[in-house]
Amino acid sequence: MEFAISQAEYKQRVERVRKALAKQKLDALYLTNGTSMFYLTGYSFISTERPAALVIPLDGTITFLGPLLEKEHVPLETKIIQDVKTYTDYPGEKHPIEHFAQFLTEMKLTKKRIGTDSKAGALSLWGYKGPSLTKKLKGTKFAEISDLIWAMRLIKSPAEIQLIRESSKWANPAISLMQKHAREGAWDVEVELKAATEASTTMKKTLGSDYTPKRSIYPVSAAFRGQVGKMSAIPHAMATKHMIKKGDVIIAETGVDIGGYTCELERTMIVGKPTEKQKKYFDAMVKAQDAAFKAFTPGAKCSDIDQASIKAFKKAGLTNLIRHHTGHGLGLEGHEPPWLDVGNRDPLRPGMVVSCEPGIYEKGYAGFRHSDTVLVTEDGMELLTQYPRNIDRLTISTSA
Amino acid sequence: MEFAISQAEYKQRVERVRKALAKQKLDALYLTNGTSMFYLTGYSFISTERPAALVIPLDGTITFLGPLLEKEHVPLETKIIQDVKTYTDYPGEKHPIEHFAQFLTEMKLTKKRIGTDSKAGALSLWGYKGPSLTKKLKGTKFAEISDLIWAMRLIKSPAEIQLIRESSKWANPAISLMQKHAREGAWDVEVELKAATEASTTMKKTLGSDYTPKRSIYPVSAAFRGQVGKMSAIPHAMATKHMIKKGDVIIAETGVDIGGYTCELERTMIVGKPTEKQKKYFDAMVKAQDAAFKAFTPGAKCSDIDQASIKAFKKAGLTNLIRHHTGHGLGLEGHEPPWLDVGNRDPLRPGMVVSCEPGIYEKGYAGFRHSDTVLVTEDGMELLTQYPRNIDRLTISTSA
Repeated sequence: MEFAISQAEYKQRVERVRKALAKQKLDALYLTNGTSMFYLTGYSFISTERPAALVIPLDGTITFLGPLLEKEHVPLETKIIQDVKTYTDYPGEKHPIEHFAQFLTEMKLTKKRIGTDSKAGALSLWGYKGPSLTKKLKGTKFAEISDLIWAMRLIKSPAEIQLIRESSKWANPAISLMQKHAREGAWDVEVELKAATEASTTMKKTLGSDYTPKRSIYPVSAAFRGQVGKMSAIPHAMATKHMIKKGDVIIAETGVDIGGYTCELERTMIVGKPTEKQKKYFDAMVKAQDAAFKAFTPGAKCSDIDQASIKAFKKAGLTNLIRHHTGHGLGLEGHEPPWLDVGNRDPLRPGMVVSCEPGIYEKGYAGFRHSDTVLVTEDGMELLTQYPRNIDRLTISTSA
Repeated sequence: MEFAISQAEYKQRVERVRKALAKQKLDALYLTNGTSMFYLTGYSFISTERPAALVIPLDGTITFLGPLLEKEHVPLETKIIQDVKTYTDYPGEKHPIEHFAQFLTEMKLTKKRIGTDSKAGALSLWGYKGPSLTKKLKGTKFAEISDLIWAMRLIKSPAEIQLIRESSKWANPAISLMQKHAREGAWDVEVELKAATEASTTMKKTLGSDYTPKRSIYPVSAAFRGQVGKMSAIPHAMATKHMIKKGDVIIAETGVDIGGYTCELERTMIVGKPTEKQKKYFDAMVKAQDAAFKAFTPGAKCSDIDQASIKAFKKAGLTNLIRHHTGHGLGLEGHEPPWLDVGNRDPLRPGMVVSCEPGIYEKGYAGFRHSDTVLVTEDGMELLTQYPRNIDRLTISTSA
């Protein structure tokens, strides 16, 4: 298996962009979002304070504008980008945006119409400061066009689905390793790192030398993110000072980088014999996820999924413990459209890949949330992640 | 030791902000940058597509505006934020920015002057879309004021320096563990994860239950980022498909989260007996770093440091192999001002903390770069990271 989108598919994506440019009477696309650049070219780099842009002319040379340190990196990652124009470094004797204005002039894109995701001409990261590109090229018209790439990213191609499917396959053993190492007295961070190490090593042994993470440092992310005991009541907790102890509810999360794409798999686990209250909340959460799964039917709207889980929580009398909507798109970002939210009445469409993760959280007590990766299909849905969801299989045995 | 900035110091920072607001005749500060919010309050959260803002009125209640899932998180992390106003989720039945406009109205900040780092009212992450806050509050005047926080962050306080000093102390054993595990036939990712696990566990055992990372999932970041063999010639490589082999040049990097701050420590290592060419390049790199260290003198400019290392490379006849400037500020971000760059003639000031990392890179061959964390002092500089820099100590023995 090739763990990447093919150059042929990247070419198709570029052609779709060019068709959209032509339709909108634009002469070029100027992109600053690194993930969008990866989506169109397969080129993955670290976005920093140093301005960088991908320029796709309607016809003409596809060019990367960026810092010198990326010059020799680009051709190693992609054949889609045909030219690389660089400045030495930021801020430099001459500001990168001045260089970019000159590069666009060399590309004969002045006095033309350019679609862009940033009229500033650069992301505003890590204390970056600079003049606006639109002010440097006064004769050029810039039109906001971020929606174009997001619309393309919304529906996953068969090749993208294949990568997320492979990612899901590896998330299962990763979360199993988290469960194996989670025990009374353990530090959540140590459990995470042990699981990440073992899961990564097994992947590499199995997948062979062709495999390497594409957009993350570590192949497997395994984290409780501090969601241990009382802190599991905070969905976006960062850390806890407490060791895992008997009676704790803990929430384990994994993702796996396959060709730059990832799934999402999360499980609530109980340390020791579950109490009646833990069982009640756990059960309500699983039922809400079941209800959400069932709502993926042909013709359903994104909001229907959220409403289905809310309805299930209502039946259990626990809507007051909801803290977030039911899910989000995934693939290239931590979260991405579509949003499974009551406010999003867009239709579900085959090829969308989303998390399904209704949760309930009681302050000072605990949180309960499973997350699975769901592929929207013509008939309804397919569950890509497969780890057990029932409390018996997610109970961690303790000493007494 | 307390591994965090004190609430008293956060209060002082807020007072500095309020003095600056008064001076600029502004009625409030509206911040969307998560790192800036952490800098002012100690509140660390995951920035997502969900809009979030910190509002500091000139006088009045310091308020966090954000998604419901952060409501109970805020008071666990900080006492500086006095009120939390939330919307259910994004996009929601009513857009978060509509909620924010209403919240600012409740805070009596309409028809006032507000300093902000984002006139949109929200970061543009992960496919976020929304109306501009400035358009929703037409009577309110918004002034760009990002520079204020960056100016404050430029000079580290004694407490911040103490945290970065502690971070540096732990980076030394972390990189030592990377060196220990790096050997012929090893996968760079496995070496990273083993070192991160062991270093984190030792830290926790030593520092005790009070220690936990504040802004990262894992306490120790240990990475080669693919800088192995030929790929070490790419400073921002992401990954390599190749196992570490005899004759490789490899570049190891570490950082350690102490109270949300980190140092930077990087070392070039040679796998097996160094060749004459490896020695020549390694030696030139160390001399360039020495020259840069010596340039930290009272009255020196940021550009002087960059020029000193360039001059040293020139003496070795290797300026054509330079791919980036000599260093950058650090502490809360991967990179941050000040930039040690020929184009930045700002004076070095005591309390600045920067990386010092001149490097050379030959395409298809290898890269050579050490990075150390430097504190600028009244007299010159103090090196906070301390790992050996000479080739003998950085040679990894091989089988034959």
